This record gives sequence, C-alpha cells and structure tokens, in this order.
Amino acid sequence: MADKQTEKQLDIQRAGDTGNKRPIMLAIAGDSAAGKTTLTKGLVTALGDDRISSICVDDYHRYDRTERKDLPFTPLHPDCNYLDIMEQHLKLLSEGQPILKPVYNHADGSLDRPVYVKPSEFMVVEGLFPLWSRASRACFDATVFLDPPEEIRRAWKVARDTAKRGYTEEQVLADLDKREPESTAYIRPQRAHADIVVQFSPILSRGETVEDPLSATVLMRPTIPHPDLHPVVGDDVNEAMHLKLLRDDDGKPVDALHVHSYASEEATLKAEEAIWNLMAVPEPLSDQLGMIDGQRDGPLAITQLILLFHLIQARHT
Amino acid sequence: MADKQTEKQLDIQRAGDTGNKRPIMLAIAGDSAAGKTTLTKGLVTALGDDRISSICVDDYHRYDRTERKDLPFTPLHPDCNYLDIMEQHLKLLSEGQPILKPVYNHADGSLDRPVYVKPSEFMVVEGLFPLWSRASRACFDATVFLDPPEEIRRAWKVARDTAKRGYTEEQVLADLDKREPESTAYIRPQRAHADIVVQFSPILSRGETVEDPLSATVLMRPTIPHPDLHPVVGDDVNEAMHLKLLRDDDGKPVDALHVHSYASEEATLKAEEAIWNLMAVPEPLSDQLGMIDGQRDGPLAITQLILLFHLIQARHT
Repeated sequence: MADKQTEKQLDIQRAGDTGNKRPIMLAIAGDSAAGKTTLTKGLVTALGDDRISSICVDDYHRYDRTERKDLPFTPLHPDCNYLDIMEQHLKLLSEGQPILKPVYNHADGSLDRPVYVKPSEFMVVEGLFPLWSRASRACFDATVFLDPPEEIRRAWKVARDTAKRGYTEEQVLADLDKREPESTAYIRPQRAHADIVVQFSPILSRGETVEDPLSATVLMRPTIPHPDLHPVVGDDVNEAMHLKLLRDDDGKPVDALHVHSYASEEATLKAEEAIWNLMAVPEPLSDQLGMIDGQRDGPLAITQLILLFHLIQARHT
Repeated sequence: MADKQTEKQLDIQRAGDTGNKRPIMLAIAGDSAAGKTTLTKGLVTALGDDRISSICVDDYHRYDRTERKDLPFTPLHPDCNYLDIMEQHLKLLSEGQPILKPVYNHADGSLDRPVYVKPSEFMVVEGLFPLWSRASRACFDATVFLDPPEEIRRAWKVARDTAKRGYTEEQVLADLDKREPESTAYIRPQRAHADIVVQFSPILSRGETVEDPLSATVLMRPTIPHPDLHPVVGDDVNEAMHLKLLRDDDGKPVDALHVHSYASEEATLKAEEAIWNLMAVPEPLSDQLGMIDGQRDGPLAITQLILLFHLIQARHT
C-alpha cells in the first residue's frame, strides 16, 4: 500500500512539474497600522510593477465583519484566519506557481471574489501573520518586522481607520484595547523571527516628540548576510546615519543602523548612493524611495534601500 | 545559483511536510446536464458524508455572468476558467491538503467568497474539465466520462436550467447551440481519457424512446483493474445485465456492461449483491444506490455500484 501511494504521488509530481522560476520573496510583518503598506509601496515603485508585486496576507479572514461580531476573537487571532491556506499560498508563490487569493474588502468588511495572482520576479508579502509558522517563514529570502512604539502606531491607526475604513475615533481606540491581548500573544512574537526589525520613532534623547519627523532604527540580525555598511558609515555620511553594535531585547547581538530624521536631504542622498554602490549591480539607484504623501522622507528612503538591497542581492547570488 | 535555489526549495518542502493521508479520488467529467450531480449524489449518500465528499470544478470561472456577456466564448472554453488553479487544487487535495475553493453562484451568475474544503477519505470531483490535462488526470484513482446521447442531454439541460437557474427554454436552446463548437473542441475529447464511460439511453433495438426508463451502458477500459464480472453475469442476473466485449469508437477493446431498464427491481438487487460480494470488504452494500427524485432506478444503481467498487477497492489495495 505504501508503494502504491508513493507511486501515485510521484505520478502527480511528474505531471505537474512546470519548471517555474522561484521569485525572491520578502516578508513585511507587523501589527495593524505599523506602516507596512507605506514601506511596501516604495519598494514596488522603485523596482517597477513589471518586476515586483505585493500581496497583503490579511485577506485570509475566515469570517466577514458581520460574522465576527458574535465571535470571541479579533482578526488578530489565528482561528479567525485560514493560516493553513496562507502558508499553502506562500509556498506555491515561492515555487513560482500562481494562486487564487481570497479578498477581504476593508471598506465594508465583506469577503469578495478571489483574485488570480501570478508571482513576479520579486514579491513583497505584508500583513499580520507572514512570519507565523516555520512553514510560512521558510518561503522568504528575507523577513522584516515593523515595530513602531505603541503610541505612534495607535495614532497611525486612528488616522487611517477613521479616514479610510469608516470607523469613528472611539471605535478605533476601543478596538485597539480589545486587540491588545491578541497582539501580545500572536503578532509581536513574530518579531523574534525577523531578519530585520524596523522602528520609526522620535529620538527622545534629542527632545523629539511623535509630532516631529521620525528617525529610523534598522536592526540587522546576523541570520542573513546584510550589506557591510562599515565602509560607508564614515565621516561623509554620519550626518545621515550611524551604525552601532547592540544587544537586542532578547540578548542577541545585532547591528543597529540609526537613520537620523534631522539630516539634510543632501546627506541622506549621499548615504543612499554609498549603500547602493556596495552592490555593483547594473540597476540605477531609484529616485522614488522615501516618498510618503508626495514628500520625501530620508529615514524611510534608507530603510527601503536596505530592503531593496536584500531583494536585488538575493537575485544576483 | 542552482544550488542556492535547490537548497531553498528543500527548506520549503521540509517546513511544509504535514504527512497528510492521500484521499481516494474519482473524477466524473461530462458536458453540462450530462447527469454528473445525480451520479455523484448516490455515491455520497451510499458512503456517508463523514467518509466522502464531492466538489464541482465548474466553480473555477474566470468571469461572472455579466462579464461573460461581452466575451467571445462560453464557460466551456478553457480561457473562461482558471484551469491552472483547478489543476493546482486537485493536486493539493490529492496530497491530502485543504484548499480555498472559488464559488460560482449558478442562481445569479456571480462569483462569491471562496469556501474551505478539507479532503475526506474519498473525494468525487465532478465538472466540465476534470480530465482536461495530464496534470489533472494524474490526481485521480479512477476517471469517468458521462456520455448521454445529445437528444437526452438537451432535454435534461432544458428541464434543469428553466427550473433552477432562471432561464427560459429558448435561452437554454440558444445557449446549447452557442456552446456546441466548444463542447466538441474541449469537453468531448476528455472521453478518451476516462477509465469508465457511462451512457444512459433507451435501447433503440427494443423500440424504446427517450420517454422510457433509460438503460445504462458502462464501458470499462483496461486502463485500471475493473471488477471481474464474469463470475456474476450468468443466468442468475442476465435479466438485469449482460457483459459484452466491444471495440470502442476509437477502435480499442473495452468491456461493455449493459444494464437493462426493463429488469425487475428484484433482478437488479440480486445483481448488485453479486457484484458487491466480489469485493469481500467489511462494509455492507448500501440500499441508497439508484435514487433519483425519490424513486429507485436499477441501471443508475448498478452504475453507481461499479464506481463505489473502484473507490473502496482503491482504499483496500
């Protein structure tokens, strides 16, 4: 019986082998309104949508908004999502296969007809759960966790959900409180599995507040090969950024790249060029990095550049 | 680069290996209104929905009814369907994996939210395209093509589509004419890939018409091991059925089991028992075979029994 089963499986495999090329896949995980879409947009614009596409894996909701009303958990609970199907779809995409992806309509909370997604040369996968399991993590070439201070994330969530998703400020704040235990239990633990942790926040030691332009801290864990920034973080660019060896909250060593919001545009552009030249690839450096609401943001640009570096490097090695 | 790709693929495979048990899968292919659902229902009732489930693969429509109005093809055209996703889902089910299956709403022609389907011990997959490609066929343990005379299929389609899908008789007849070239090009060629071809039709040589109860012809191709019916088609059951060696339309040898509509219920029941006993399995013979609109139909019962035989035999070998 075992032989018969194995034979059948081999037959299925042979018949289905289409020799598709595997895309380079980047995960951007983080809680609701942590800035995932903003970070993703710059990467897609920089490489162009003929080479890179992004999907949001928050569409794997098991219930629509009406059904969820009577249920004891929020969308942050694994049982509220088809995470097994999300894992399956990530695996298929990582093998170069198309998927029929479910669609959650954020505007009215309904589940719509699914959409056909064919993997591009590069895929960004953003959402609440991309680093959830060993099976999902194995699909990625590099993984990012967005980790803004809660104060900032709450402000971002109120601004977005009242403007775009039809909620009142009171509803969003109540929802944040309701989600807090599930954020702690299911979303934040994914930070431990990221190769790169990004935090946009004010530099408190300089007296900055959340109202000021935000600086970025990019923690680079030695779980994948990062760009060697030592040659570029000399005197020329130290207005824009500096590199520091730290212990992360979990005690493990990390390289922390601090990108200063107070640097001039000239200084951050010089730093970007220096990082880009490390790669020696034919592609020119994009001038579309760091755009947010039509304005250029230096720390965002350099963060996106680090991620772009990983995508392009993975293609060339 | 090749090594890096291979290593990554192995990593993905290892992380995703869940050791699921493969279901036994039966395909029932055929044109619209060929009787696929009726044949399927008896199998599901006989084995019980805790052991067997069925899916219809006509849900993989690329366009809804409104979008199709401006398109130059009918749902019988491969380009009107996500057949690559159908193949992918069949492969996943055949490996014991769940799928998120698209849903086409036949009542209003819209594409609805997808449904989660977990494979049962036995799966019946019915529809227009299950035998479409080598990749789809490889997923099945046995394959059936339903091949009623066109006159009968047209009458069935008019009866169903006017009663259940909101069309007028004129619309259905016009639709049948429009679909004819695509039936010829894409649906009927699948007959060549079936292990079993089933035809319900009147026995013209006995002067029967389409108004009479229909006899069944079950062509069993030597592509899979069929029940050896020689010991049972003796004098005891020859009122109910007889076996004949034929050349099929394509010139290849087949065993043709003719099941007579004129046989008494007693005679078909005796034949059913004789076939069932060939298997020597612990399951009792179901008394739910052959039911159609609350009435028992002998030729349908024996046809379903042959398929049941294949399902259960595949599980026990």
